[in-house]
Order: sequence, then C-alpha cells, then structure tokens
Amino acid sequence: MALIVQKYGGTSVGSVERISAVAERVIRARQAGDSIVVVVSAMSGETNRLIGLAKEIQARPSERELDVLVSTGEQVTTALLAMALEARGQCARSYTGAQVKILTDSAFNKARIQAIETQSIMADLAAGRVVVVAGFQGVNAEGDITTLGRGGSDTSAVALAAALKADECQIYTDVDGVYTTDPRVEPRARRLDKITFEEMLEMASLGSKVLQIRSVEFAGKYNVPLRVLSSFVDGPGTLITLEDEILEQAVISGIAFNRDEAQLTIKGVPDSPGIAYAILGPVAAANIEVDMILQNVGVDNTTDFTFTVQHGDYDKTLDILRAEAEKLGAREISGNPKIVKISLVGVGMRSHAGIAAKMFKVLADEQINIRMISTSEIKISVVVDDKYLELAVRTLHDAFNLEEAGAFTR
Amino acid sequence: MALIVQKYGGTSVGSVERISAVAERVIRARQAGDSIVVVVSAMSGETNRLIGLAKEIQARPSERELDVLVSTGEQVTTALLAMALEARGQCARSYTGAQVKILTDSAFNKARIQAIETQSIMADLAAGRVVVVAGFQGVNAEGDITTLGRGGSDTSAVALAAALKADECQIYTDVDGVYTTDPRVEPRARRLDKITFEEMLEMASLGSKVLQIRSVEFAGKYNVPLRVLSSFVDGPGTLITLEDEILEQAVISGIAFNRDEAQLTIKGVPDSPGIAYAILGPVAAANIEVDMILQNVGVDNTTDFTFTVQHGDYDKTLDILRAEAEKLGAREISGNPKIVKISLVGVGMRSHAGIAAKMFKVLADEQINIRMISTSEIKISVVVDDKYLELAVRTLHDAFNLEEAGAFTR
Repeated sequence: MALIVQKYGGTSVGSVERISAVAERVIRARQAGDSIVVVVSAMSGETNRLIGLAKEIQARPSERELDVLVSTGEQVTTALLAMALEARGQCARSYTGAQVKILTDSAFNKARIQAIETQSIMADLAAGRVVVVAGFQGVNAEGDITTLGRGGSDTSAVALAAALKADECQIYTDVDGVYTTDPRVEPRARRLDKITFEEMLEMASLGSKVLQIRSVEFAGKYNVPLRVLSSFVDGPGTLITLEDEILEQAVISGIAFNRDEAQLTIKGVPDSPGIAYAILGPVAAANIEVDMILQNVGVDNTTDFTFTVQHGDYDKTLDILRAEAEKLGAREISGNPKIVKISLVGVGMRSHAGIAAKMFKVLADEQINIRMISTSEIKISVVVDDKYLELAVRTLHDAFNLEEAGAFTR
Repeated sequence: MALIVQKYGGTSVGSVERISAVAERVIRARQAGDSIVVVVSAMSGETNRLIGLAKEIQARPSERELDVLVSTGEQVTTALLAMALEARGQCARSYTGAQVKILTDSAFNKARIQAIETQSIMADLAAGRVVVVAGFQGVNAEGDITTLGRGGSDTSAVALAAALKADECQIYTDVDGVYTTDPRVEPRARRLDKITFEEMLEMASLGSKVLQIRSVEFAGKYNVPLRVLSSFVDGPGTLITLEDEILEQAVISGIAFNRDEAQLTIKGVPDSPGIAYAILGPVAAANIEVDMILQNVGVDNTTDFTFTVQHGDYDKTLDILRAEAEKLGAREISGNPKIVKISLVGVGMRSHAGIAAKMFKVLADEQINIRMISTSEIKISVVVDDKYLELAVRTLHDAFNLEEAGAFTR
C-alpha cells in the first residue's frame, strides 16, 4: 500500500462536474489500495475574481488581507471535493493550510514553507479517510493566513509529500506529461516516460510551464518522486526522478525554447575589473531581470558585452544603456528584440562529447546563424533570429532522434 | 472613549461600493474617538451561491464540509473591508472566527458559542486598529470550522460585545429601527427609540425579522445594549436595553403579527390525563412545530383541543389527526388555514390592567371575530380570520395611540 499525494490545478477542479470526476479518480486510487492525500487549487477563474474585487478597492491592497481573501478559493474547492467523495461513500476530510498546519514565514503573497505538522493527516489516513488539503496556503507563527504565490499549490503538494514521506507526488494538469519539445512546434514531439529533476528544472525555466520551478527544486532536494499526468485522459504521464533511477538515459531529453528574449550589446568598453557590474548594476536597479550574459574577449584592452532581457524590458534597458554609455566609455550600443533562445537539455551531455558540435553543425547546415552560445553542464543554449525558431527546433528534434524513445541512449 | 461593536449584514456589504460606504462609516466612528470592532456577513447572495454548489454535488452535503465551504463568504468580506479601511488610511486587521478564536461546540451548521478569546483584539484596539471579524463562524475544540446557522452574524456580534464588555452593539440593517408595527400594513407606524429585550423577543418571534432571536436572548442575558440602525440612512435607530433604563415606558410598544399560522381543532376528546400528549405526540414526531395551544373546558367529561401550526404543515397535520381520531375517541376534527395571529406587546401590561379588555372591545367594535386568545406576561395574542389583518392592526394601532411617542405611558 503506497501513500500518494495528488495535486489538481484550477482547470481540473473548474466546475462541479470536474470536481466529481476528480472524486472518482481519487476513489479508483483508494480502491487500488493506496492512501491518498489530495491538494487542490481554487476553481479556475476564482482567484482572479477575488483579486479583481480587491483591486476595485485598492490598487495595491494590503498584502496580509490579500492572502485572507484569495485563500478562500482553495478552501471552497477542498470542501466541495470532500463532499463529492462522501457522496460516493468515501470518507474524507478537508483541511485549510492553517488547519494542517503548514507553517510558513510571514512573507505574505510569497511565503515559504518552514514546517508541516503531519499527525492529524496521518491519523485520518490510518482511519481510511481521504485527506483534502487547500494548496497555495499556510499560516505564519502569529496565526495569520499566508499564501505561497501563484502556482504555489504545486509546492504545497511536494512539501506535503516530503513531510508525509509519500511514495509519489502526482501533479494532475491539462497536459499528459513532459514532452521532448512543444508539440505545437514539432508535432512529432514525444512524451517522456522519465526525466531527471535537473533536466526538468532546465525545461521549466525555459518556458515549459508544466510545473512551477520551486516545486521541482523542492522535489529534487527532498527526493520526492514527482509525476506529471493529465486529469482528463488516463495515462502514465512523466515521472521526474533522480538520475540514477533512470537506467536508459537518453543523451538529450528535450528541446526547450523561449520566445520572450531580447538581446543587447555594448561594444568597446574598457576591459577592466568591475565593468560587468558597471553595466548591469543600473539594469538590476531598474528591476529588470537579465537572462544570458556573455563577455567576449576584445581588442586594445576593450571588450564587448552582450546580454538578454525579457521582451517587455527591451526599450527600457536600451534607454538605460544609452544614458550610461558615456560613463562606461562604450564605442557602440546595439540591440535586437527579434531573437529566440533554443536549448538542448539532457544529463547525458555530461558524459557524452560532441553534442555541442553536432548542434552547431545541424543549425549551420540549415543556414541558421547563431548569435549567442551559452552552456551549462546539462544544457546548450543558442540565440538565433526568431524567424528560425520552428525550423531550428524541428531540425534538432530530428537530428537527435527525439521522436524515438531510447533511440539515442548512452 | 467607548468600545463599539458594529455588525453589517449581507446587503450592507453586498458590493465593493457598499463595503466602501461601510468603511467610511466606521472611520467616522473612529474619528469620534471610539474603538471599533466590525462584524460582517457574507456579501449578499454569496452564501446561497456556495450552498448551490454544494447541493449540485450532494443533496444533503456533509455538515462539517458545508461549514468549511460557507465560512469563506464572511472571510472574503473581512478582507475586503480591512482593505477598504487601509485604503482610507485607517489601520485594520481581519480575523476569521478561528483566528479570534470564537470557540463553539461541534454542532456543525448550528453551533453554539462557548468562549471567546479577546487578547488579540484588545491589543489591536489599543494600537488604534479597527478589528474586522467574520460573523456567523467559529471553531470547535478540535480546530474544525463551525457556523452558527443563518443569521448567526448577529449572535457573533452580540457575543463579541459581551466578551469585550463593549459599551454598545450596533446592528446595521436595511431598516432604520424597530417599528410599532409593520409600516407596510400601517403607514403611521412609528420607529421606537427604545424597547426592552423581552419586548424585542416577542416582536422578533412574531415575524419582525429585524434581529435574530438568539442574538436578542444573548444580549439580554449578558446585558449588552443593542441598537438597530440603517446602514443606508443616518439616524439613531432603536436601542434595545433593560427595562429599568427606559424611563417613560409605554404600556404597549408594538403590534406584531404572523400570517403563517393555520388552526386545527379536535372536539370531544376524553378529558383525561395525557390527552394533550396523545394528540400532540404524533404531530411532534412528524417534526411539525406547534405554536399556540388551547384546551377548552368541555362537557360530559370531554374537552375541545385547538392548536396552530405553520401553513406549510397544515395538510400533513390534518392527515395525522384524522389517522389518530378513532384512537383518540374524537367526535370531530376541523381546521382553518385562513387565519392570522395578532399580538399586542409591551412590558407595561404587567402593571396595567384592562389592556386585554380594551383590545377585545376595539376588535368587537369592528365586528372582528376572535377565534383564539392566548396571553403571556407582556403579550396578548388573538387569532382572527386573515381577511381582518390590516383592519385589526390599524384599528389597534390607532386605539393605543402608537403613532404618538410617549402618548400612552404608565
């Protein structure tokens, strides 16, 4: 008998019908002999409705009161799901974050979990009850309601699974797993059976919005096997787990990409200590997040400096650089908002040489010019003109045989 | 500096605009130097919306989960009102029933308050904050959310006022006070400045739905001065207080009536011990509530027995009596669903003879036949045909000079 934590997002509990379908899925798992803890989000649209009410009252509502307000969304779902389970003869019990209790710090709207009490839940499970917990919320040491921020229900589920030493944490979404790349770009994209935590982090941070990054970090840190499944169609989903539990590890697990990038370049700045800070300090001070950063070796004691920001910050960043140009002693400032970042992700890269070379050759064969390159242990990212996105992704998917499971294993 | 508990019902907080108006009213009271605790209901319609969701899932939802569900309605209002206060520069803090904590028994959906912790609220008030408490809800010793039942926000307010030793508990509603009778029946009905707890109980139990009966009982028991006011128009409202604090007590405070009555009569049953139980036992067993009960002296060792029930229970009660008739040895069973009960209410009756006689004469002069009479220390009730309701109320209102304040004092 396994202990499973299941998490259902807003669309999976978006109506009474869908909540009933979740209840039936939970009961099937119970009948298979497992103990089940369910973590739920607010019904889709409800959180936005509540925030809308708050914004009508105050443009920047009190953070404490905003958490009191929006936490009701998940509470409603817990009660309705518990009712749906009891209507089908399955004993159930709902819990708010405070009732569990899920202790957090006092950073309202973006609190972090510090500890979880498990006695009550374990007692309910031992009595054969299904436990339904409100995701996204907790309580601080003073008894104030806190929330973990958007998408925080994933984190609630993983943290509960870790605290309860669950055998698996299942995240039910509207997709049936993690794919080798976005199927809208490459129809031959394949659902992965397994992927490592590290790969998932790279995929997630590059725009595969299946899971919240913090929940994957958490799962990796506490070694909670995480599975992404669809709440609408049955299937095995994708298991996210430790590297050494994946026997036939492919070199490349997937291709991630991010359309929301814009590139800025400063040419001919003095190649002296502190130049990176001199350039990026004013950018950071304007609350602009920088993604890739490259510094090329220059000539005549000068260097070129290139970085990327989100699209929406492009104009503002360009203004900042122009204002700083003279102070920096820059020869030229240029930029390009029409670029994308494409990344190969795979833990197999560590032990497999030649992946980068192959990637560059494949792109060159298609006449795709690479503007920036950045590598990490399990990822190679390139920046190319945005018009090449689909071509590049499909060509790489094909070149690395990603449509075939296990075709290219180490 | 007084400590005031203000309670606002669903229509008073039914929209963002109305919540803002409540915030402004609270701030005016703060500026007058008072400490304010606000108790709020769910926004109008919200409780029914939530119950509707539950009923879609289960005809008779789990009582525990129903409380988890509906308690979110008041929680939403507390957060929005606290935001509206802070948007206007007034520090505020919301509390759920569990956060206060308002300890209740475990009778879900109809819990009773057992104790209220006041330390946190008193500390907030001392710091100049307005405290906003979710009405209608509490928490049991196990930490489960409970609700006090419909209208329970009045009870929350009075109980908080008692626990905090508040100077006054103000109930804001959509009427501007307690009237001598229903102004829709008698346009000359007058708002009372003061009324005693006992009179208010009689008025409330007879259909003047200004306040929940339990909250008046509670206020009387703990001697919490209670004031009914309008949240839409300014005015002094009606103060409900102890008898000895009302100097110029009118003999009659008001005329209450109840259209929801139906009369049943059993004639010629044996005048023997246990006959009342033999008749009313089967009625009570069918969960039918009996209001007035009269047993007349009969002849030949038999007696006549008359009682009233709510309209909706009339047919069912008649069926029960007919089924029992033979067993009871009744000569005849009859009934009349087209009746109303009209009551004069006033603590002055205790010391003032002749009120009943005057009432009967006034009705007789208008040819209104009295079918039943029942009296208590501060109330005289008569049952008459429903077609006479308006005539009887207006004639009595006029005869006892109720349109004139203090005209008929003891």
